[in-house]
Amino acid sequence: MRSLWLENQKLEYRAQVPVPIPGEDEALIKVRMAGVCSTDLELVHGYYPFSGIPGHEFVGEVINASNDPSWIGKRVVGEINIACGVCDQCRSGFSRHCEWRKTLGIHDWDGVFAEYLVLPLNCLHEVPDHIPDNIAVFTEPLAAACEILEQIHLQPEDRVLIIGAGRLGQLIAQVLQGTGCVLEVVARHSKQRELLANRKIDVIEEQCLGNKKYDVVIEATGSSDGFLLAVKSIHPRGKIILKSTYKGDMEVNFSKIVVDEITLIGSRCGPFSTALILLAEGKVNPEPLIEAVYRLDQGTIAFKQAAMPGALKVLIQP
Amino acid sequence: MRSLWLENQKLEYRAQVPVPIPGEDEALIKVRMAGVCSTDLELVHGYYPFSGIPGHEFVGEVINASNDPSWIGKRVVGEINIACGVCDQCRSGFSRHCEWRKTLGIHDWDGVFAEYLVLPLNCLHEVPDHIPDNIAVFTEPLAAACEILEQIHLQPEDRVLIIGAGRLGQLIAQVLQGTGCVLEVVARHSKQRELLANRKIDVIEEQCLGNKKYDVVIEATGSSDGFLLAVKSIHPRGKIILKSTYKGDMEVNFSKIVVDEITLIGSRCGPFSTALILLAEGKVNPEPLIEAVYRLDQGTIAFKQAAMPGALKVLIQP
Repeated sequence: MRSLWLENQKLEYRAQVPVPIPGEDEALIKVRMAGVCSTDLELVHGYYPFSGIPGHEFVGEVINASNDPSWIGKRVVGEINIACGVCDQCRSGFSRHCEWRKTLGIHDWDGVFAEYLVLPLNCLHEVPDHIPDNIAVFTEPLAAACEILEQIHLQPEDRVLIIGAGRLGQLIAQVLQGTGCVLEVVARHSKQRELLANRKIDVIEEQCLGNKKYDVVIEATGSSDGFLLAVKSIHPRGKIILKSTYKGDMEVNFSKIVVDEITLIGSRCGPFSTALILLAEGKVNPEPLIEAVYRLDQGTIAFKQAAMPGALKVLIQP
Repeated sequence: MRSLWLENQKLEYRAQVPVPIPGEDEALIKVRMAGVCSTDLELVHGYYPFSGIPGHEFVGEVINASNDPSWIGKRVVGEINIACGVCDQCRSGFSRHCEWRKTLGIHDWDGVFAEYLVLPLNCLHEVPDHIPDNIAVFTEPLAAACEILEQIHLQPEDRVLIIGAGRLGQLIAQVLQGTGCVLEVVARHSKQRELLANRKIDVIEEQCLGNKKYDVVIEATGSSDGFLLAVKSIHPRGKIILKSTYKGDMEVNFSKIVVDEITLIGSRCGPFSTALILLAEGKVNPEPLIEAVYRLDQGTIAFKQAAMPGALKVLIQP
């Protein structure tokens, strides 16, 4: 099959990769659409030593599912953590944090920038018929955005700042807007600002920050600049959510964190069911975030475009 | 009056410092006993550019309180944050985080290593008669230890690790023991281990850590080694409490924090009323932590002893 292939931090198109063979309780899925995420870009830069087919955002159709043929023909999205099912984490209901997990397109499990992939059946979620592929493909990053609401309780009087309005920041903004909180977003690029304006989400200039005004700050840039801005903006006893892919170490002034009793919360994968509801009901609309759709053999160009400053979502259609 | 004096990172004894004059709604307090804390030691190392009388842990007797003479003669301890009373923080009930606060012996307000100090009446807490001075002087650091329980809810099944068993770590251990959680402490020095053993608190060897076992880790060393050990020991979705004085920046691997969805919580001053209850009921006994009692004119020796590795509480009796 055709696929992208990552090895030694080099991404290339390969036309002749074997179609994966599903094991017990696994499905073979034909990819209908895939999305490029910042983690994919960081993998190419050595964030994690992965070799194989990258990519973890997708919508596809189940082609084969030997143990449960009722899945065949269904359109699905899939959770990216392939859990062991028996460790302490799995038994406590936190299989996303399974000690022995493999991760789709990131760690020890081939990903979705290909014609086909394999996933365990218990990772799959059926997509409602009326959600088109180019919307459904946003389920995974939207679930990650929804994870914030699983971690903290937002109230209408909470002043919330999102730093970064790229592909993930825009989804977070739409999700948090739904809580009725007092929301402002730092967006560097005019296209990003326009998208926010269309949703009636307020943009704030970076130079207006630094007055420790916000109860909650979402750091969605993955940069140390973004983190410093978060620390400057957070209210004493406020919460900073780390919602990005961070490469390497960051310098943190712990004295400030302690004296102001700030809470930092790492935030990763989230609930697919919530994301699918938001998409099904049209409460979140990711369609304007689509910047380009490429074929698999144009994958390296797709990655380049996704890495441009201010880039939004780049999709790959096999 | 006699006092210690800090200027340009140099601590000295001064015999002829003017007795402070209380303003409206303030009390003049005669110091009966004061305690040396790690923050005092860090002030000498330039943690914060303070000039004047350091020290913020004390028990004393009210000598003068013009607006409310009923305080006169009472034995008191005092909160260290002198709040403005009108800013957003004060009006929200978080006067410890007052935007314009002064801090006893730390920022813009002379401290307790002296014969007398001044504090606003609303900072004072009367000490029950049966708590002796050498116990009451622990109220402030014990309140800081109690702050942890204001920030997180500990349950009997929670596995909790305290890293560091110095003067603050020991108080934290006694406070957390009271929750019935599964508690272990990293203690480097034999005296520290002995104190913990006397309280039937389990000690764990550093080399046994690193298996991500703990739901909650209290970092009470203020060192980057301690923080790295905390990150190695914390369970996915666990909470690390930063409970020390941190000087300078720390290197943090944010990828680990995000992937494991770890929460870092800065923790500073706590509830005096809770601390006084624990002391009054004997649920916490800080007496074995007292390592030495010095006179004011021996203050620089007291600071040296408090800075020794493994040192416990050094008191100063004017």
